[in-house]
Amino acid sequence: MQYYYPEPIAKLIDGFTKLPGIGPKTAQRLAFHVIQMDEQIVLDLAKALVHVKKDLHYCSICQNITDVDPCHICQAKTRDRSVICVVQEPKDVIAMERTREYNGLYHVLNGVISPVEGIGPDELKIKELLVRLEDENVKELILATNPNIEGEATAIYISRLVKPFGIKVTRIAHGLPVGGDLEYADEVTLTKALEGRREL
Amino acid sequence: MQYYYPEPIAKLIDGFTKLPGIGPKTAQRLAFHVIQMDEQIVLDLAKALVHVKKDLHYCSICQNITDVDPCHICQAKTRDRSVICVVQEPKDVIAMERTREYNGLYHVLNGVISPVEGIGPDELKIKELLVRLEDENVKELILATNPNIEGEATAIYISRLVKPFGIKVTRIAHGLPVGGDLEYADEVTLTKALEGRREL
Repeated sequence: MQYYYPEPIAKLIDGFTKLPGIGPKTAQRLAFHVIQMDEQIVLDLAKALVHVKKDLHYCSICQNITDVDPCHICQAKTRDRSVICVVQEPKDVIAMERTREYNGLYHVLNGVISPVEGIGPDELKIKELLVRLEDENVKELILATNPNIEGEATAIYISRLVKPFGIKVTRIAHGLPVGGDLEYADEVTLTKALEGRREL
Repeated sequence: MQYYYPEPIAKLIDGFTKLPGIGPKTAQRLAFHVIQMDEQIVLDLAKALVHVKKDLHYCSICQNITDVDPCHICQAKTRDRSVICVVQEPKDVIAMERTREYNGLYHVLNGVISPVEGIGPDELKIKELLVRLEDENVKELILATNPNIEGEATAIYISRLVKPFGIKVTRIAHGLPVGGDLEYADEVTLTKALEGRREL
């Protein structure tokens, strides 16, 4: 198919198809768009790709992806160091930060227990979490893994591990999403929402 | 939104959103995928982006995008130099080549007459086409602009300009669905369109 493309285009199309969700047609469309883009913007994108591979690593404390060590959140003096929120992925940290309601620290597992995909506890950054609980003066551990089977299993696993430390362990609430519709809520969510009802 | 991303990730997300059809959510997904990709593949993509901007230019003869000048098709000894197929975009050359039915030369307009978008004949590579018709021994000009309003208008405009040269001017047949896009036509339809071309 790429028989008559000049080599630079063919290589770019090839490169784009390595990204998730981008097939040959989309890759072709992107490549031809790049040809017409402002040169500086394209060079910036190229540089960003290189930097992401060269400059990023895991924070030695919270295991989030970072360009400095410890990461900005672990370094911040204004953060409440007595609370750690455990999440699955670096993106979940961003999601939490967007709420502007949480001011504690994080711990990123970089995965979730999933027997189907052959991922056990040892593949996650759980050891590193236990080290923190021993060393730091942590009062509460919030388990904010995803509310699905794997996330629940991981939360339960960690809560059992942490029991001996005598630290308060909490799990984010299940319920109806704000702005949602009772009519369209699935039974399990609605049951959880009922169970978690609070006095007004 | 990108408040707490490490700078390398923020820049990459920003770079991806510059591409067509990629919003902030997709850009974020792509960026986090890149972090986990094989380093060499990412570096190759970055290099390809740079090369596309640095090494590509228009062929001085057919105005196609190329890395050598004249382009491979204009240089090829096996091509029938008495026929020129006029297309809108470089991608259309690829579409035509895929039919394996056409062995002449091309002329890429790099656009189409579109009063709505303020694109007149002067923005297209029509002057360069007329120069070729004067210099080269061309017997037939195939107008293969897209079968929509702009493409038809451009075809008619060129056919009138070329009349004085006494060259046979043909238009690809409406075997293509009207309102469609040359780029997405399948080979068989495109071949039919070629076979059914009529003199204007």
